[in-house]
Amino acid sequence: MSPRADVSIDLGDRSYSIQIGSGLLGSPDIFAGLPKAGAALIVTNTTVKPLYAQRLRDAIGARYAKVHEVVLPDGEAHKNWETLNAIFDALLANACDRKTVIFALGGGVVGDMAGFAAASYMRGVPFVQVPTTLLAQVDSSVGGKTAINHPLGKNMIGAFYQPLQVVCDLDTLHTLPPREFSAGLAEVIKYGPIADMAFLDWIEANVEALMRRDTAALAHAVRRSCEIKAHVVGQDEREAGLRAILNFGHTFGHAIEAGLGYGEWLHGEAVGCGMVMSIELSQRLGTVDRAFATRLTRLIERAGLPVRGPALGPDRYIELMRVDKKAEAGEIKFVVIDAPGHASVRGAPDALVRDVLAATCG
Amino acid sequence: MSPRADVSIDLGDRSYSIQIGSGLLGSPDIFAGLPKAGAALIVTNTTVKPLYAQRLRDAIGARYAKVHEVVLPDGEAHKNWETLNAIFDALLANACDRKTVIFALGGGVVGDMAGFAAASYMRGVPFVQVPTTLLAQVDSSVGGKTAINHPLGKNMIGAFYQPLQVVCDLDTLHTLPPREFSAGLAEVIKYGPIADMAFLDWIEANVEALMRRDTAALAHAVRRSCEIKAHVVGQDEREAGLRAILNFGHTFGHAIEAGLGYGEWLHGEAVGCGMVMSIELSQRLGTVDRAFATRLTRLIERAGLPVRGPALGPDRYIELMRVDKKAEAGEIKFVVIDAPGHASVRGAPDALVRDVLAATCG
Repeated sequence: MSPRADVSIDLGDRSYSIQIGSGLLGSPDIFAGLPKAGAALIVTNTTVKPLYAQRLRDAIGARYAKVHEVVLPDGEAHKNWETLNAIFDALLANACDRKTVIFALGGGVVGDMAGFAAASYMRGVPFVQVPTTLLAQVDSSVGGKTAINHPLGKNMIGAFYQPLQVVCDLDTLHTLPPREFSAGLAEVIKYGPIADMAFLDWIEANVEALMRRDTAALAHAVRRSCEIKAHVVGQDEREAGLRAILNFGHTFGHAIEAGLGYGEWLHGEAVGCGMVMSIELSQRLGTVDRAFATRLTRLIERAGLPVRGPALGPDRYIELMRVDKKAEAGEIKFVVIDAPGHASVRGAPDALVRDVLAATCG
Repeated sequence: MSPRADVSIDLGDRSYSIQIGSGLLGSPDIFAGLPKAGAALIVTNTTVKPLYAQRLRDAIGARYAKVHEVVLPDGEAHKNWETLNAIFDALLANACDRKTVIFALGGGVVGDMAGFAAASYMRGVPFVQVPTTLLAQVDSSVGGKTAINHPLGKNMIGAFYQPLQVVCDLDTLHTLPPREFSAGLAEVIKYGPIADMAFLDWIEANVEALMRRDTAALAHAVRRSCEIKAHVVGQDEREAGLRAILNFGHTFGHAIEAGLGYGEWLHGEAVGCGMVMSIELSQRLGTVDRAFATRLTRLIERAGLPVRGPALGPDRYIELMRVDKKAEAGEIKFVVIDAPGHASVRGAPDALVRDVLAATCG
């Protein structure tokens, strides 16, 4: 077992900790701080269940008289109302009450849906994130954003709802398919240009170690990512301002996902490519130089991510970005790198956005 | 215009005021404190739209460049995901952003759905309650409970989400059908036995004035109801304890609604009958005497409400009540009158509940 690292999210009475390490999932001690309840519900998917559901059951079995389970289809294409409703059906069919603890065991899609179900069932029940993908460990399980997609836009329906605890077992990353692992690296890389250039240097120096899933490298990447996210979320839980910088690459990325149909590209792949587009935009806005844009693009490519966008056509990109949550009164908002290690949210002239799309797509 | 009364809900940075009076709906001044935004969305239903939508549009038209509208089918039977989704569709089709203000114009069903849509759209947009039924003015528009129904239980999926403002225009009560008006009186009567015996005395003395919709009587009933609700919600926003007393009559009432199919009985009718059952239970538990139970039942009857429950059979009642949100580990919880003017939440032996159902149903 590698040394365990804990990261705290400081949100007053909604504070919680993120445990990061090897061998955590099967350890009852890890879950010892959770409230007592008659029942728990594990929300997982068809891919993760055979790998890790029994391990989690063994760890929490002594705490709850009944441990129910709902197994969702795998993939972003299923992050919709119909699948969410399968969670409500399971809760109600098992007469789960307000104290029932929901465990999200899986990647970002499972976490988003289990979290929104927990936020909404009886107007809120306790929940725990047990992320099993790199993307979920470094980003989506932390900070309380939950949502489902709408055909017209990603994450359009959801809630800010904090978990009681996040348990990141690094061992689960060893079963992740290469495409999914790379998708997670996109969100790791993200933290460099927006907040921490030393971390970007470290990722560049360690990307091969990460790609071969070296435990010490993974531990550092997950911990530092969670620290940066915790710092940002602690200052701006509900995204009144600062928190929006965590969406670097996401305005373009969400358009790619919605435009191709959810699930065609993985979220992290779309974000990786979206970061290439965003750094191109930043460079054309004059805030970073060409060398920095090239450097970031090169790292994204080394992480096994796409660096050219699908040829949806600029009109379609712009139409999709106009309904992004960050848009205001029809003006598309982009996270732009002001200077290496600093980001802000701003609009950009349509013509410039079209130039960026022309340079980075197809 | 009758004198305007304001009641404040004190919830820290989520505090707001309830304005109560005649002629408020068409007055732009009433809405002067709302935040600026590019767009507003009025959520209403097919019954209320022809009566009041234009008046609200006139009042808020100068504040928003665009005022969109979504018109839902009328009735509790439509308080489901499908109808909720019609609100999301309207928001997205009109490219509504995070600052869009949602106005709920209608009764409890419209308020619950518009409120949950506001809580969930882009993880939360501002909203305003403009209740046009007595039930919504005295109860459901105040306190931030929003929800939709699930086939297995009422209000099972929702959020605690406070409005920015509640505007109770007493004039709208004059177009309310008698059945709906009586249903609202159930929630007015409720406040007496749980919290304020002087108010119960006043209702008994003024029930005929209320039934003929005397403006001064309505103003007092709405104001005092809102004051009591504001006091309770201010102490326990998320129903950790005290707030549950506001559900007097609701454990039995929800079973009636779910058992008959939503919309067969109005919510307030089911609550009225549920209070008869609950006071019968209280009497059999020995906390109030027969005279008090008879007195309350008589008042409920005078308000035009049913005092005998439908013959669902005791097994079905009990099955439905076991999935009520207040149930814990399968134990049904009832709001019981401890003494006139005081209530608490407790369990009761199944045999006693069966006796109550036998005495009050069919």
